[in-house]
Amino acid sequence: MDDGRGVTGHPDLAEGTPAGTRREVAPNAPRDGARFDPSDTRQARSTVAGPPRGILRLGHVDVTVTDLDLATAYYTEVMGMEITALTDDSVYLKCWDEEDHHSLSLRYAPQVGMDLMSFKVHHEDDLAELENRVSRYGLPVERISKGDVLGQGESIRFATPSGQLMELVADVEKVGTSRSRNLSEPGLDEGRSVRDRIAPPRMDHMLITAEEVGESTQFYMDVLGFRITEQLLDGNGHQLGTWLERSHSPHDLAIVHGPNGGLHHFAFWLDDWDDVRDAADILAYNGIQLDVGPTRHGITRGSTIYFFDPLGTRNEVFTGGYRPDPDFPTLTWTADNIGRAVFYYEGELNDRFMRVHT
Amino acid sequence: MDDGRGVTGHPDLAEGTPAGTRREVAPNAPRDGARFDPSDTRQARSTVAGPPRGILRLGHVDVTVTDLDLATAYYTEVMGMEITALTDDSVYLKCWDEEDHHSLSLRYAPQVGMDLMSFKVHHEDDLAELENRVSRYGLPVERISKGDVLGQGESIRFATPSGQLMELVADVEKVGTSRSRNLSEPGLDEGRSVRDRIAPPRMDHMLITAEEVGESTQFYMDVLGFRITEQLLDGNGHQLGTWLERSHSPHDLAIVHGPNGGLHHFAFWLDDWDDVRDAADILAYNGIQLDVGPTRHGITRGSTIYFFDPLGTRNEVFTGGYRPDPDFPTLTWTADNIGRAVFYYEGELNDRFMRVHT
Amino acid sequence: MDDGRGVTGHPDLAEGTPAGTRREVAPNAPRDGARFDPSDTRQARSTVAGPPRGILRLGHVDVTVTDLDLATAYYTEVMGMEITALTDDSVYLKCWDEEDHHSLSLRYAPQVGMDLMSFKVHHEDDLAELENRVSRYGLPVERISKGDVLGQGESIRFATPSGQLMELVADVEKVGTSRSRNLSEPGLDEGRSVRDRIAPPRMDHMLITAEEVGESTQFYMDVLGFRITEQLLDGNGHQLGTWLERSHSPHDLAIVHGPNGGLHHFAFWLDDWDDVRDAADILAYNGIQLDVGPTRHGITRGSTIYFFDPLGTRNEVFTGGYRPDPDFPTLTWTADNIGRAVFYYEGELNDRFMRVHT
Amino acid sequence: MDDGRGVTGHPDLAEGTPAGTRREVAPNAPRDGARFDPSDTRQARSTVAGPPRGILRLGHVDVTVTDLDLATAYYTEVMGMEITALTDDSVYLKCWDEEDHHSLSLRYAPQVGMDLMSFKVHHEDDLAELENRVSRYGLPVERISKGDVLGQGESIRFATPSGQLMELVADVEKVGTSRSRNLSEPGLDEGRSVRDRIAPPRMDHMLITAEEVGESTQFYMDVLGFRITEQLLDGNGHQLGTWLERSHSPHDLAIVHGPNGGLHHFAFWLDDWDDVRDAADILAYNGIQLDVGPTRHGITRGSTIYFFDPLGTRNEVFTGGYRPDPDFPTLTWTADNIGRAVFYYEGELNDRFMRVHT
Repeated sequence: MDDGRGVTGHPDLAEGTPAGTRREVAPNAPRDGARFDPSDTRQARSTVAGPPRGILRLGHVDVTVTDLDLATAYYTEVMGMEITALTDDSVYLKCWDEEDHHSLSLRYAPQVGMDLMSFKVHHEDDLAELENRVSRYGLPVERISKGDVLGQGESIRFATPSGQLMELVADVEKVGTSRSRNLSEPGLDEGRSVRDRIAPPRMDHMLITAEEVGESTQFYMDVLGFRITEQLLDGNGHQLGTWLERSHSPHDLAIVHGPNGGLHHFAFWLDDWDDVRDAADILAYNGIQLDVGPTRHGITRGSTIYFFDPLGTRNEVFTGGYRPDPDFPTLTWTADNIGRAVFYYEGELNDRFMRVHT
Repeated sequence: MDDGRGVTGHPDLAEGTPAGTRREVAPNAPRDGARFDPSDTRQARSTVAGPPRGILRLGHVDVTVTDLDLATAYYTEVMGMEITALTDDSVYLKCWDEEDHHSLSLRYAPQVGMDLMSFKVHHEDDLAELENRVSRYGLPVERISKGDVLGQGESIRFATPSGQLMELVADVEKVGTSRSRNLSEPGLDEGRSVRDRIAPPRMDHMLITAEEVGESTQFYMDVLGFRITEQLLDGNGHQLGTWLERSHSPHDLAIVHGPNGGLHHFAFWLDDWDDVRDAADILAYNGIQLDVGPTRHGITRGSTIYFFDPLGTRNEVFTGGYRPDPDFPTLTWTADNIGRAVFYYEGELNDRFMRVHT
Repeated sequence: MDDGRGVTGHPDLAEGTPAGTRREVAPNAPRDGARFDPSDTRQARSTVAGPPRGILRLGHVDVTVTDLDLATAYYTEVMGMEITALTDDSVYLKCWDEEDHHSLSLRYAPQVGMDLMSFKVHHEDDLAELENRVSRYGLPVERISKGDVLGQGESIRFATPSGQLMELVADVEKVGTSRSRNLSEPGLDEGRSVRDRIAPPRMDHMLITAEEVGESTQFYMDVLGFRITEQLLDGNGHQLGTWLERSHSPHDLAIVHGPNGGLHHFAFWLDDWDDVRDAADILAYNGIQLDVGPTRHGITRGSTIYFFDPLGTRNEVFTGGYRPDPDFPTLTWTADNIGRAVFYYEGELNDRFMRVHT
Repeated sequence: MDDGRGVTGHPDLAEGTPAGTRREVAPNAPRDGARFDPSDTRQARSTVAGPPRGILRLGHVDVTVTDLDLATAYYTEVMGMEITALTDDSVYLKCWDEEDHHSLSLRYAPQVGMDLMSFKVHHEDDLAELENRVSRYGLPVERISKGDVLGQGESIRFATPSGQLMELVADVEKVGTSRSRNLSEPGLDEGRSVRDRIAPPRMDHMLITAEEVGESTQFYMDVLGFRITEQLLDGNGHQLGTWLERSHSPHDLAIVHGPNGGLHHFAFWLDDWDDVRDAADILAYNGIQLDVGPTRHGITRGSTIYFFDPLGTRNEVFTGGYRPDPDFPTLTWTADNIGRAVFYYEGELNDRFMRVHT
């Protein structure tokens, strides 16, 4: 928690936390200040009165970029993310309200694409159990040692049925939230404000492409425990797209029909529709043409803009949607409604949305 | 518009769901359309890849009112809830986007107060396990039979350490969401729109009072598995208030120092700050004086208005706040910040907030 | 509309005016409750300390429709306007916060088009003077007698240089604003709310097409006293579009290059960006595909949606923009910026926007 | 403020104007780029087709402060105004979207108060005519020479019937709007963003106190040509407060009962309700306790926050309200509604609002 400058001195004050607030260990909270102590095996093993088990949320997306400087400039100056680490060929970034080490990494490569998608798992024991389940499903699992990836400990990796490399990790370095309005604090944001940038509070979800949406969906549900909130069916009742969640949000991961291995987009959370407009203003000012939106999705009910980073990876900003508890029924959309399902205001898909991915 | 299945055929079209949308059983979803089938014991018992266990969310608050007609008029005409059942002395209500039978019940009694607070549990097995835990803690538990409460099956009840009667229930009748913009549909909302009413999509959380906040908090955490997101400490480090969650929101239940058995308020969710203003307009138009707000809480970061129903029970409308994952550290506020912690803009508590509860 | 208690019985309570408010003659106000008494010639002739002179604002747009019932259903049920008068072949409508008799009329005809555009003039004397100026410019002027048009007295009409029929009128019947949240008032809004409709408070501006934008602009400025707030120039410095105002708003009338006599769209005012989203929701729910938006104009800075009524006349909802005082410099956009000038987020015009008008 | 590229190099890009936009002389606009050329006497004298005459708007408020550094820090760092000039004892400031030299000046003095209120007049000829009218009313008028006040030419000054010193001026230096999102432009905003400050686009209105509200109102209406939009009457029908406009807004100047010579507050315009919340966040973060709000006025329908600058002068941020054309009837509020008239949500005045002014 402590960043040497006193993490507790940098709460996000614009968002409701005054300067004097300390983030500290609660008397009734576990030793490390987390609400559950990952080293307390007894607690982690409890069930009805214990913490959630398994996958918590989307952790980070690792993409390749053909121009590391340009990509970094975009994700910091326009998107407003913060750099948490740099290596020779990679940049690690997080959003201001995220505690974990990074939610996006950029690696230089001659081609744009996705290295992997990483999901945060609650406890090391959950990781072991999930490793077992993936292996039993028949997929080879690689264990990555602590120290091999910046900002996190041991993880497992495997190629999903639709070809994306997936990582699961429980042990992630917490670097604390860092946003402050007090620009005179040395070292913080280099004296400049995040508010002329989009500055989403956090990464929200991602969407991948799969040749067999149904098979992939089954894998994520049966093996990894994702819940399906909505689905889009073609005329024969086959799944064209599925929306899956672990974090009680409308989706942490979605799958749409397309080539195996594809990344359609990853999405940042915004707090409301006015932030969506501000994002559009900032993107337009920076010469980034919007792909679709501001509009609303029928699926998830969320408000959205799609656009591309300067190297061609699709980004989304997203807000709204309902709170889908686990006992909420799955909502099914049929092919005759596909336009409205995806872009509720336009009522039709655009070509780019269907064809372009990385 | 009518799908022949009754009320549940009226998805909320204003919020992004076109007329032709069907809510139906997904091929990969359990038989009953729920994302997890409560009758599938194997699934319910799974862990890392299974559904959440234990308490899902606040289910319903049962309060007494001294004038049932007046209270009903307020909760339907001003708040915009829907009546799902009526008995001689009680009215059952739900918000338009809630699936379950009711989230509020009003019972006539000569005095205003709270009968009980009911939390939804995922599975019958979880209920049994929680019953065990409460008994082992030393509290007498009563089992209520199916049929004794409208709209739900078997439940357990017990007096919490701070004197409120608490109910846990897994088996709740799903009545579907019912909002529609098509006012000409007979029987729906009696030909009138919910949009001149506040019409929150759902109940969000509640706040109770306790003489021993620390002891109560420990009970909810250790026995029932709540996680603590924020706490307010007095000068000696004792808890004056704690914010607890099960649903990945900033709070499902909060406890502040006060007499045992007290209900401070229950809160409805709104989608954004503009809905908060609209709620203020509707309340003021209906002659309901606002107690506090529109303002922001330091704790939870949420935006809020407090006000009283015509019989004197405090209501809140609430939006915003961050998404507190289980690995997010607890945020601690100290007594010197109490004003800002509770009402960030005013920087001070008002007397009514501290003294008045039911 | 009239509730038997007079116009003043329908203040807009949702917008901040409580039920008991009376709209009555102010001690220091002219006899008829208007802030300036049009019958007081001395006052109307004053200059620096007198009321504004000449054209006040866009008064009403008269369009033809090929299906009067369908058009009426759309403008009342979806747009949320109120019918103030009906004749055999015409319907007269106003927005809820407008005082004047109508701001839109629909007339049955075998072809969709515009009959005329009518601008409100402050005083009868101003009308006479403007009649003179138009005649001296060389355009034939017709004087229409009181009683020939519903809801208004004498007016003048003439074909503008670009072929649209223009009306100027000072004497318009005030019918009062009529919106109320109190649905139990008999006769008011027939027991139904305007809030499930878009319900803009007022008409805002209109845009016409002209073969010679420069010549037309000169006419509106020199003869009728419009002020130019923004202009779009082609590569040769010729005006492709001009934005003209009389009401201290970014535009009351705009002219873009196109066939003489064309109506590009008329626009309703909305109060903010959230109302723009709500309008999009209501349009989409009613199956009306959005043409462009929600987006922002570079020109005027306003937020906007374009769409078509069911017969093919383009509508806009518009909000925002700056307050352009008469001493504010004209803002010039050049052709290389045309995309951003018109649709700031998309950065490009769509074909429909350029080709389609009525 | 000048970046060496001319004023037109700083369009407001965040608000919809891309980087390449030039503000230049329009072919159909007067020589100096203003929409009306103040040096063109013929034009200024025209009536129905000419520019507005007389007072255009509130120009600037000149207040005294007991700590010039503290006041300057507040109005720049928190309020986000820009310094346009400095002298030994005074600081001149403008909002980012204002063209004129300043809208606020701060002068060091041992006591907080108001030096004068200055209103912008359209043309020098109007100024002469208004001078005449004030003299004929019986008030001594002083003519201030060009060069005596920074940023403006000749003006007239007089004590109003309620004792405030009033200035009227036509000749004001235009310095251009200066906001840019491009923080790397040297010299612009010293490398820091205005968006962590409230940064209102412009000054909107002011409210003064008068012992005889009726007499004062009559003066502003009859002599200076203000129009009355709303009034608040006591039980005997006497005016307790009046709202007066020249700029087609709900009020440029308001008068409430109180000691002669008092300044109740001046108000900055914000674009919407979300900006009101952001202002509240910024004020709270900077330790400035809100006086009232966020709330809505019944009168004007506007949304508002009141608060005090660090030296004790009341500020307001204001948005919304209707567009009151000159033919709109005056709205009258009676004393039994005074609470709702002023603070619609609270339904009652607070003591500070009635007692405290400077």
